[in-house]
Amino acid sequence: MRQVYVKEYGITPGNDRALLWKVRMMLDELQGTMGIEFVFESGTYHFYPDYAVEKTLYISNHDEDVPKRIAFDFSGWRKVKIRGEGAVFLFHTDILPFHLDRCHEILIEGITIDYERTGYSEGEIVELSGKRMVLRIDRKEYPYRVFHGELYFEEEGAYHPLYYGCLEMDRRRNAPVYQGRDISFNRPYPSSYGAVFREAGENLVEVTLTEDQQFPETSREGNRMILRHHLRTHPCFYITGSEGITLRDITIYHCTGMAVISQFTKDITIERVCLVRHPQKDRIFTATADGFHFVYAGGKIHIKNCVLENQLDDPVNIHGIYGRIHKVTSKREVIVELVEGMQKGVLLGTAGDYFAVIDNRTMLEQEHAVITEITWMNSDYQRIVFAEDMENLTPGFVVENQSWVPDVLIEGCTFRNNRARGLLLTSAGDVLVRDNTFETPGAAILIEGDSNYWFESGATRHIVIEGNRFHHCAYVSAWGKAPIQVSPSALVWEKDRRYHQYLEVRGNVFQCCDDRLVNAVNLKKLVFLDNKIERTTVFEPIKGQALELDGVLEVETDINKEQQI
Amino acid sequence: MRQVYVKEYGITPGNDRALLWKVRMMLDELQGTMGIEFVFESGTYHFYPDYAVEKTLYISNHDEDVPKRIAFDFSGWRKVKIRGEGAVFLFHTDILPFHLDRCHEILIEGITIDYERTGYSEGEIVELSGKRMVLRIDRKEYPYRVFHGELYFEEEGAYHPLYYGCLEMDRRRNAPVYQGRDISFNRPYPSSYGAVFREAGENLVEVTLTEDQQFPETSREGNRMILRHHLRTHPCFYITGSEGITLRDITIYHCTGMAVISQFTKDITIERVCLVRHPQKDRIFTATADGFHFVYAGGKIHIKNCVLENQLDDPVNIHGIYGRIHKVTSKREVIVELVEGMQKGVLLGTAGDYFAVIDNRTMLEQEHAVITEITWMNSDYQRIVFAEDMENLTPGFVVENQSWVPDVLIEGCTFRNNRARGLLLTSAGDVLVRDNTFETPGAAILIEGDSNYWFESGATRHIVIEGNRFHHCAYVSAWGKAPIQVSPSALVWEKDRRYHQYLEVRGNVFQCCDDRLVNAVNLKKLVFLDNKIERTTVFEPIKGQALELDGVLEVETDINKEQQI
Repeated sequence: MRQVYVKEYGITPGNDRALLWKVRMMLDELQGTMGIEFVFESGTYHFYPDYAVEKTLYISNHDEDVPKRIAFDFSGWRKVKIRGEGAVFLFHTDILPFHLDRCHEILIEGITIDYERTGYSEGEIVELSGKRMVLRIDRKEYPYRVFHGELYFEEEGAYHPLYYGCLEMDRRRNAPVYQGRDISFNRPYPSSYGAVFREAGENLVEVTLTEDQQFPETSREGNRMILRHHLRTHPCFYITGSEGITLRDITIYHCTGMAVISQFTKDITIERVCLVRHPQKDRIFTATADGFHFVYAGGKIHIKNCVLENQLDDPVNIHGIYGRIHKVTSKREVIVELVEGMQKGVLLGTAGDYFAVIDNRTMLEQEHAVITEITWMNSDYQRIVFAEDMENLTPGFVVENQSWVPDVLIEGCTFRNNRARGLLLTSAGDVLVRDNTFETPGAAILIEGDSNYWFESGATRHIVIEGNRFHHCAYVSAWGKAPIQVSPSALVWEKDRRYHQYLEVRGNVFQCCDDRLVNAVNLKKLVFLDNKIERTTVFEPIKGQALELDGVLEVETDINKEQQI
Repeated sequence: MRQVYVKEYGITPGNDRALLWKVRMMLDELQGTMGIEFVFESGTYHFYPDYAVEKTLYISNHDEDVPKRIAFDFSGWRKVKIRGEGAVFLFHTDILPFHLDRCHEILIEGITIDYERTGYSEGEIVELSGKRMVLRIDRKEYPYRVFHGELYFEEEGAYHPLYYGCLEMDRRRNAPVYQGRDISFNRPYPSSYGAVFREAGENLVEVTLTEDQQFPETSREGNRMILRHHLRTHPCFYITGSEGITLRDITIYHCTGMAVISQFTKDITIERVCLVRHPQKDRIFTATADGFHFVYAGGKIHIKNCVLENQLDDPVNIHGIYGRIHKVTSKREVIVELVEGMQKGVLLGTAGDYFAVIDNRTMLEQEHAVITEITWMNSDYQRIVFAEDMENLTPGFVVENQSWVPDVLIEGCTFRNNRARGLLLTSAGDVLVRDNTFETPGAAILIEGDSNYWFESGATRHIVIEGNRFHHCAYVSAWGKAPIQVSPSALVWEKDRRYHQYLEVRGNVFQCCDDRLVNAVNLKKLVFLDNKIERTTVFEPIKGQALELDGVLEVETDINKEQQI
């Protein structure tokens, strides 16, 4: 492998707006070369969007499908390493650090990623009554200003209103408050708080509710509010149509999106990639959305020895996309709609892929066949042609690309203190989750699948959850019914068929404040054996049985019958 | 020419969401065929964005360079007529009616264009005191709702805040109020009005100012407010890289952008294209931006027998774009920046074009040469390579593409009651404006050019304004100093060189409420002869001399010396 020390291209640590210009020249010069290792020496590299590549990106599960700036744009590269020798990459304002498109065998390692100005801000609740809250906001770190009773945060170059709501974090646990919820101000729907903001002193902002509403009962002085003033726009790593991607020894403190989002990518290894709170800044949040998110992955997903904490959505989500049949134009041809707003624009596959036709009520497969053509009409609609006549093409039914089914191994990780749930596992491959620690406000393991609302597929075949530690998970009911939850959204179940097939929960430790362990519906077989259950008193108990099962055909467990419903 | 009656493709009048699907199928089938006349029979055709083509468009002088839906997307077509036999095209929500890209010899005629739900709304001022205004808004025509003290308008599918301000229209003249101005509410700058909105009865909305501000002194009960809740996003006709385009006998009642915007297009004829108030709806506004706007046009622009009224910006603007030299990377190569936000993303030319290098202070040409290469880096920056070594490449200087200089003939038109100015003429070609009627709140003829703020080029050579009627123009000082204004923004003038060369104003009728006729700077020669000046009393006089000239080297006029400064 040829080593390229990037300093040879003038790329050295420092705060130079033209640094990315040099990166771009270097990549243009070397484009097409196989077997390069780019070495970034230690130090802090500032990257500004000025000279970045600009491409219109339809990033799944993110907002704003518009032209975006990309710092490291690798399209069609093969056998490349990017190695930081402890380099810190500090990004400025709206820029996507890494986009790998149609790449093979890429390894990125040894870098730390942060942003000069975060897309969210935070404040401590210093005074609180029913209708009045005073927040202490560090104006230097999170520059803000009140205009006409509205609170705006200054990002690099523009004022952004506090438009996307707030999440309150418990001051002792640095985690979402017990039974807390997202709140918002002055949004165009009645349940949003009507509020007026006022500067109330140095670093102090007073919020007064103006309507017949009160702050949540779970709010407390001393807690910290995460203040959202940015859409979910720029993930750290956006990987599409690639194969053999390894991210290793990477620390991410912040981005205005997910740490990693991949689409149609095979064989991804993520090892010692830590999405963690900044050790000096004492920021209560990390990424503004999920940790690692995989849409229609293939081959194997291997996540090992990672720590994901305090990000604003689920640490791991693995799923496909159900396209809803909108029009049936022949026995072989349908127009398919992407329904969920954040999935818009994602092409559902390529000619030659296997597609299943699925009844959206039962969510069970009716038939499947190879497709010979798929055409992107616009971000809402795609035209799909099957190789043979089909019998079940029905408007409202959904299609799923079954050529993209990853095996999954998640091991040795810690998932804690984020908003929402833990691992969202919806892959029909072999899924093994072992030796991880969970401390999540929602369900730690969520096995869902939905063909009517989120349109995230699909049915699972074999999931083993083994030797993990679950520390008082599912303490916010809106985000989970139990530490382990199986809840596909099928409205109708067939007599002997189930959406999910096999879930084994064995040899784990559950520290719980109440009885709840597993809440499952529409599952063929549940094995729950040899788990150690410990009682803690961290939270008030939430009602529920150890095993709450509905429509589970077969259960093998050592939990007493009286603890099941 | 082969006639295609579109009804043969199932395209018939009616409110069918799938109508555009049929259009798309028809165009896909016939793509590449030369010599087609598409005939739309009379009736109202509804076009929804559902099945429209979607492309990322960097439309000059518009907001939001993002993927947009296009109803009629003609790319690379030749010799095509689209003929409506009195057809009405009614568009729904955000969709661009016509995009012609790399087309030759296209004629569109005989259609009327409107939108089901306009991007702006309006209300009548029914009560007014210093800090309180009550607006009567027709809720059926302009659905609205107040949430948390903010006014939102419901467009098709979403609530949009009244974010982009208001313009008040005089109730008698149906035109901008004398010496009025744009106002806005609750924007993040101090001069914007702090305000609270409240529903005050059926079709009534009360606005109360909450800070130390009062409504403008020019506001009156009975006047109508144009309420802006949409960005300038979707012109009616977007024409790029084309040649030989004719628009004829077209009526446009509304669009959320300009009626016509062209870039790098040669030979455009616009005849009997009327941008007028809807005769039944009694709407006070038409398009939300300019009438006809030409960026780097070539060949001839011929505008004949058109009526443009009540649109929210200038009826005609013809200009190029100055790119600012950002970095000089060699004797032949520069990185050029697009500075003005609405010009972002527009590639400034193609290899083989002549580019001038211009001193931004004097705005005078230093040298010019053919370029051999131009590369789009991102929407901010372009790389330009000259064919020879240059002597004057200097950061801050600007470049102008001089291969794109149109001759202009504007005749028999009426321009009235719009916001802002009249004709903005900055072309070095032969420009003739004859037999038109002007009734514009700003300057009726504005000859500008700016290399420091708007970056609209360029210097003019020969402009004749002949046999027109100017009815009490320039009654809003912020939009014009006199009916005829020449005001390039050069900061420094060279002794014997001028930015603009020759302006002849001959045989026109000026109805004026005061002395002002021509205000000109930095012009080589002014001819002002044989014009008929009539006094009217429509407005209070505004101070100024008949001819206010500064740095005009040569003047030929029959206006008395004492009326000049």
